[in-house]
Amino acid sequence: MNEGWIAIAGLGPGSEAMITPQVSDALARATDIVGYIPYVARIAPRDGLTLHATDNRVEIDRAIHALTMAADGRRVVIVSSGDPGVFAMAAALFEALEAGPQAWRALTIDVLPGITAMLAASARAGAPLGHDFCAINLSDNLKPWDMIEKRLRLAVEADFAIALYNPRSKARPEGFEKTLRLLQQICCDDRPILFARAVSTPHEALRIVPLTQATPDMADMRTLVIIGSSRTRLIERAAGPILYTPRSAA
Amino acid sequence: MNEGWIAIAGLGPGSEAMITPQVSDALARATDIVGYIPYVARIAPRDGLTLHATDNRVEIDRAIHALTMAADGRRVVIVSSGDPGVFAMAAALFEALEAGPQAWRALTIDVLPGITAMLAASARAGAPLGHDFCAINLSDNLKPWDMIEKRLRLAVEADFAIALYNPRSKARPEGFEKTLRLLQQICCDDRPILFARAVSTPHEALRIVPLTQATPDMADMRTLVIIGSSRTRLIERAAGPILYTPRSAA
Repeated sequence: MNEGWIAIAGLGPGSEAMITPQVSDALARATDIVGYIPYVARIAPRDGLTLHATDNRVEIDRAIHALTMAADGRRVVIVSSGDPGVFAMAAALFEALEAGPQAWRALTIDVLPGITAMLAASARAGAPLGHDFCAINLSDNLKPWDMIEKRLRLAVEADFAIALYNPRSKARPEGFEKTLRLLQQICCDDRPILFARAVSTPHEALRIVPLTQATPDMADMRTLVIIGSSRTRLIERAAGPILYTPRSAA
Repeated sequence: MNEGWIAIAGLGPGSEAMITPQVSDALARATDIVGYIPYVARIAPRDGLTLHATDNRVEIDRAIHALTMAADGRRVVIVSSGDPGVFAMAAALFEALEAGPQAWRALTIDVLPGITAMLAASARAGAPLGHDFCAINLSDNLKPWDMIEKRLRLAVEADFAIALYNPRSKARPEGFEKTLRLLQQICCDDRPILFARAVSTPHEALRIVPLTQATPDMADMRTLVIIGSSRTRLIERAAGPILYTPRSAA
């Protein structure tokens, strides 16, 4: 009898204190951990546990590796930072599952949610996602720029607060610049924008500026960006401002 | 010296296994727990802890109560299910803070994120939020129906997967009926729709149907609804289907 399984687990934004007991339990029962190098580096080595750290952009290879090991009876945890279902490994695993052998569909596969970056960033800043909002991945590796631009325009028209994942990388410096220019053009106000870097880690840095003063260098790949809706407000305090979007629309 | 504080904490969707250690720690240090009756009922009583359970629709009174107690030196945890920053108590607390006395702005206030309903539902079903998505609160207590309808139309045009919070209550039976009719009219395909009720509790029930077969009675106030984007897919399995949205847009 094959007792292998896969858990696709979210490690949250960085702090141990934000990893759910469900995820800790899966990590404790695993024989193999699979994931992107910096995420696997967060797992403490122990006897009986093999760490398989791989580079970025090999998500489908990683998924096939995990499925193959589980089919061989291994207990595999695929780790993502944040939540595995939000711009992370869960979708890649299911792409590989759908394209793979029928036998894989008999495997036990569980997705274990985590605190995704926008929730961690929002909590640190206040409650900018307190009203309707959307989440857009700014990486155009897997979608055309035109689609990103269309979504940004419609999101502003809908007056969503907007969380931007993967705003900027060395390989894609221009996308976020175009994004800021577009938002500065189409938003009729100087709403606040939050740059939340490496939340809950020793490298955490938060910055809130009016949209007109936002510049591309304020973000990198470890930054989660939230653009307020037209209703998003700042409460000034000695301890630093609170950013929030009221519940009421009018 | 006033050592009072407020933590606005997310209890996640229901299971103890999805409460972060950070939240458990705040609950252990609290003198007072404030929240909506069913959420406060999830907290184990203990010596030195006072539970203040209040009814729905009194969010601002509850926030003022919490702020007043913290100003008196109490250690107050405001509990929400899911994440406190997503259609929950964090925004209400900051509304009360902004309108209240300046002295309140010196209080220590922390938002402690939790697993919000759409992440828990998505994880149980697969990964329907694996690509760009939005979250809309269908309650029209605090916004006009026209705004909800506009957002639904723009969200479909943007081809977001759409998470709907608070789809239906006894007091508002008609909103979700209108929502389904609108979506059936404007989506040019029979994309899947997920009804995820009471995820991670003993009352959990998941149902996935094609949009044309969705009916209003499939949702109640404990249901989180996710409408797929045009790219959302089903993988059929003996153990039940997996719902997911691929990472690629084309």
